[in-house]
Amino acid sequence: MTPAPIIDALQYCNWSPEIFRQMREGGVTAVHVTICYHETFRETVANIAAWNRRFEEHRDKLLHARSGADVRQAQAEGRTAIIFGLQNCSPIEDDIGLVEICHQLGIRFMQLTYNNQSLLASGCYESEDSGITRMGREVIREMNRVGLVIDMSHSGERSTLEAIDSSARPIAVTHANPSFWHPGRRNKSNAVLKALTARHGMLGFSLYPHHLKDGSHCRMEDFCAMVARTAEMVGADHLGIGSDLCQNQPDSVVTWMRNGRWTRTPDFGEGSAAAAGFPAQPPWFRDNRDFHKIAEGLRAVGFSGTEVDGIMGANWLRFFDDSFVPSH
Amino acid sequence: MTPAPIIDALQYCNWSPEIFRQMREGGVTAVHVTICYHETFRETVANIAAWNRRFEEHRDKLLHARSGADVRQAQAEGRTAIIFGLQNCSPIEDDIGLVEICHQLGIRFMQLTYNNQSLLASGCYESEDSGITRMGREVIREMNRVGLVIDMSHSGERSTLEAIDSSARPIAVTHANPSFWHPGRRNKSNAVLKALTARHGMLGFSLYPHHLKDGSHCRMEDFCAMVARTAEMVGADHLGIGSDLCQNQPDSVVTWMRNGRWTRTPDFGEGSAAAAGFPAQPPWFRDNRDFHKIAEGLRAVGFSGTEVDGIMGANWLRFFDDSFVPSH
Repeated sequence: MTPAPIIDALQYCNWSPEIFRQMREGGVTAVHVTICYHETFRETVANIAAWNRRFEEHRDKLLHARSGADVRQAQAEGRTAIIFGLQNCSPIEDDIGLVEICHQLGIRFMQLTYNNQSLLASGCYESEDSGITRMGREVIREMNRVGLVIDMSHSGERSTLEAIDSSARPIAVTHANPSFWHPGRRNKSNAVLKALTARHGMLGFSLYPHHLKDGSHCRMEDFCAMVARTAEMVGADHLGIGSDLCQNQPDSVVTWMRNGRWTRTPDFGEGSAAAAGFPAQPPWFRDNRDFHKIAEGLRAVGFSGTEVDGIMGANWLRFFDDSFVPSH
Repeated sequence: MTPAPIIDALQYCNWSPEIFRQMREGGVTAVHVTICYHETFRETVANIAAWNRRFEEHRDKLLHARSGADVRQAQAEGRTAIIFGLQNCSPIEDDIGLVEICHQLGIRFMQLTYNNQSLLASGCYESEDSGITRMGREVIREMNRVGLVIDMSHSGERSTLEAIDSSARPIAVTHANPSFWHPGRRNKSNAVLKALTARHGMLGFSLYPHHLKDGSHCRMEDFCAMVARTAEMVGADHLGIGSDLCQNQPDSVVTWMRNGRWTRTPDFGEGSAAAAGFPAQPPWFRDNRDFHKIAEGLRAVGFSGTEVDGIMGANWLRFFDDSFVPSH
């Protein structure tokens, strides 16, 4: 029998042969990798070209996945499937035609916003959230048509609820935690979690310290108890992992994530002037070798084997099967 | 004594030698011309390059104006000063550094929005207006610094009021009419007109039929009476003309203005499926030769000679003097 897949629905590491080795060592079946925070279309294409070189150089370990079937093939061949995603809608610029082009280039997730107001929706750091815009409604329809998943991880509450409602297909929050556990700006309300999962949308639990209770000092037992409490509220079928792992990135990268090119006043996002860099990972989740610890932790808080398999990857794989193909 | 200038604060014609001849025939001192509706930075630069060719070919009639002094020079030399403006913030993309670059290229007006939500503010066609965004507040500060005028002609009510308040320098509504006269989506409330002019901002009255009572059949007497009523409310010192003349443009251009690249569902803006093209101009304002008729009409409704001179151009010229230079 094929073992259950391990799927991480968000990483943005400083990619290296070492990290790819760790993916294999950890038995990681698939990773959704970010290829854009603020990039234009052309800049995003350059990032894809860089990935094409990695696929060529590391063909023994990696495979560019465009479908659930590709993820299964990677697993059968002992490789890790890499799925492209955008944390911002900047690559489609103001051109709805670029939605399908992005899908053709193998991109499978796109956030409608990254913290700020976009042409499509409001980000979680805006003081006002006016919901999905005129262009946003058009783009959601087009994303539904081509099979590009709407990801609302960095969006405001109202925009997220409207995206869930207005999308004809299930959407995702690839990397965030419930705000009932840790009231971070990026974490999600019970209303969002219930609406998301009721429409068969997926939540990926984040392991980024700013999303964790007690930050870098968060205990794994607390994290797993939070997953259990979420499952009590919305069931376990639409839960997964989206670690938001930013391994080996210099602090200049988190400065880019927060500031892009939009401001002259430094923005510290979830950090502060005194702690502007990347926070340290909790010791029980350092890198791709540590997923098995989370699986053990989930069993320890009472999840069944099937439930653990679902959360660790099978739920995401089912979602990929349903979501990455064009609608009919 | 130098005669009073005639200044039109908005035109987007299908530029031709004929139109430049009409500008001279009509004694037009300066025209604020649109060089962008939806263009990216690079596309806008291409439009500037096209204007550079026009300045070269028509140097006897035209001059690229970057300041009030340039407008006075044009008048002294019997040429028409051309001032560049953007009807959208698309040329600065997501890059605040492009604000100063646009000013360096001679651009002097920028709308924060064109009908839709932008990265900076909400447009007048959005169902919700959440005001100035995080990036919008940064960009307003930068526009103030370099001397790029904020134009809110196509913005929503709340965004317009917030721009007036948050800008350290007077802003403009280069082309719109009061909604008390004609309640078009693009026309402005009394609250906006009062706040705008109280902060020394300028209103340019539009002669585009969708902004006129009775559209193409609007009578000049009614237009001039509306100007008089506006002056009773807010005084005559901050009023001017912004005709929105789109002479000789094919209907494909209004389709581009409304739809850009953002939608697959046709948008008819102020028009309709049954009347999707450009509306006919009222017979008393066909082109640049007809400004003298408006001056006569304003005298006929009781404006003094000084007031007419102000509205026909002197008010804009004073505003240019104050607005196009960097702040100190």
